[in-house]
Amino acid sequence: MGAPSTLRFVGLDIGGSFLKGAIVNPSGKVEGRLHEKVEKDSLEALLAQLERAVRTLAGPSGARAVGVGIPGIVEQQSARVFVAPNVPALNGYALGDDFSKRVGMPIFADNDANAAALAEAWLGAGRGSGRQIFVSLGTGIGAGIILDGHIWSGTSGYAGEIGHIQVDPKGLACGCGSRGCVETIAGIPGWIRRTQAALETRESSLRGQELEPKTIVAAAQAGDAVALEIVDESADALGVGIGAALNLLNLDRVVLGGGVAAAGEFLLLRIAEAVRKRTFAQVYADSAFKLAELSGDAGVVGAARVAIIGLSR
Amino acid sequence: MGAPSTLRFVGLDIGGSFLKGAIVNPSGKVEGRLHEKVEKDSLEALLAQLERAVRTLAGPSGARAVGVGIPGIVEQQSARVFVAPNVPALNGYALGDDFSKRVGMPIFADNDANAAALAEAWLGAGRGSGRQIFVSLGTGIGAGIILDGHIWSGTSGYAGEIGHIQVDPKGLACGCGSRGCVETIAGIPGWIRRTQAALETRESSLRGQELEPKTIVAAAQAGDAVALEIVDESADALGVGIGAALNLLNLDRVVLGGGVAAAGEFLLLRIAEAVRKRTFAQVYADSAFKLAELSGDAGVVGAARVAIIGLSR
Repeated sequence: MGAPSTLRFVGLDIGGSFLKGAIVNPSGKVEGRLHEKVEKDSLEALLAQLERAVRTLAGPSGARAVGVGIPGIVEQQSARVFVAPNVPALNGYALGDDFSKRVGMPIFADNDANAAALAEAWLGAGRGSGRQIFVSLGTGIGAGIILDGHIWSGTSGYAGEIGHIQVDPKGLACGCGSRGCVETIAGIPGWIRRTQAALETRESSLRGQELEPKTIVAAAQAGDAVALEIVDESADALGVGIGAALNLLNLDRVVLGGGVAAAGEFLLLRIAEAVRKRTFAQVYADSAFKLAELSGDAGVVGAARVAIIGLSR
Repeated sequence: MGAPSTLRFVGLDIGGSFLKGAIVNPSGKVEGRLHEKVEKDSLEALLAQLERAVRTLAGPSGARAVGVGIPGIVEQQSARVFVAPNVPALNGYALGDDFSKRVGMPIFADNDANAAALAEAWLGAGRGSGRQIFVSLGTGIGAGIILDGHIWSGTSGYAGEIGHIQVDPKGLACGCGSRGCVETIAGIPGWIRRTQAALETRESSLRGQELEPKTIVAAAQAGDAVALEIVDESADALGVGIGAALNLLNLDRVVLGGGVAAAGEFLLLRIAEAVRKRTFAQVYADSAFKLAELSGDAGVVGAARVAIIGLSR
């Protein structure tokens, strides 16, 4: 099935709920997609699903390699999943071994935020920057850091854990074992929790609305004082985390992606302002802030990019 | 004066108060030292002093190149000083140009924390690590970050500003324009200010002592409750900053240097514990914490190392 002459790449994005896939040409053009509920009850069920997905996407003309984005920590050499909290069936499994033989193609894997960062750097909001951070804003908050054009993974693949920088030593306990992490405030549950608490005592146009970052940002933009406070608390928490990244690394690009980034420019500008307050003028001036551009495709295109980069090593 | 056959290097460490210099062989052995009050009233006075220092250290047998550590931001290509708050005469001056001609040798420069980081990585507590952070604990708190064996400088040379990661949004205003930075708490003035405040209302063995981090750490180690609180506030602030660096970069070594690090293992262990609370278990396990080993020589040996690396490019 692996036809070395075929220059197409399968990108798979394994999420806690869905498996997304795409077949991608060397320019990054998506030539076919797949989106299904992930079968994560057992490793065997998941591998069978992944194999079917690869065969479907590769089709009769085949593909050159497979890249996989994993919601967890990946050892890149062997594509071994160190730990994937939301897909525990994969814990400890090395995709580059058996599964590579099973589909007859080289398999490469990386963390999903790293994959999305690579996609944005390749074709989206990160184009033209060699030192950037892609911050994924969702239920959790992760990042992919690109230095000199390459993902920085660190010693065990844990690099990019911006969501666990501490903002408030007296803050809420976080799943990571620390407390008051960026994620406890600016992850989606943090937005909702803070809004619900405010609505217990204060009037707001948000009352009766479905509480999610997008509606809260829209209300803030329309002048709702409670909503604006919630937005600015999120922006400030992210300002501490992104500010730390810029003070440490003096990057030239910050790309905001993930579902929450869909709230748009208003949120982006508040976050940039929160970073500005916490960085040297030059460090802030060096960094362009941009919203991610590939939205739904970032994960699968980034996974394909992981395969392309892996092959070129 | 530059004898290409002479494999010795001049290292100069320009401080806010003192100029230190050394002549260093290719193995890092210091063959001569110099230590004088820095003449920083004008650029011309400083350059004349630097030239004399180079000639004295190089001696009749000459040297191959000069490396300079600067307490500020340096553009490495031209050895241009972007900004040096404590030696403003150097602001905007490119050492690699005129001054290189004047002494007849190639000149290379870098930030002083970067130089010290390179020295420790070469011959001290950072040996054998390719991805590490050297944190300089003094009046200010800076860092040199080494990734894949090279100093990471960032877009404009500002990388490593760990002292300006925000710990307390409601904290004291910092010289950088932000507030509650690591440095406002764990810089030497922060130790003294917090101790003086505590002594206004509480009994402590520190009363009447000269207040400096070393005596405060010694009192804490001897069981003084006030001193232990002061130490742990410092350790916690550094835990936030170093924790941020480890969560973002998953490094394998943390080297603590600068004058405050002379307080020793007790402080080191409190800082490591403060980092442990704020990082994933694996991220903490990946990082060895060490006290700097070169003490007074780190600046000049590191400056010489900057020259050696610069020549090899």
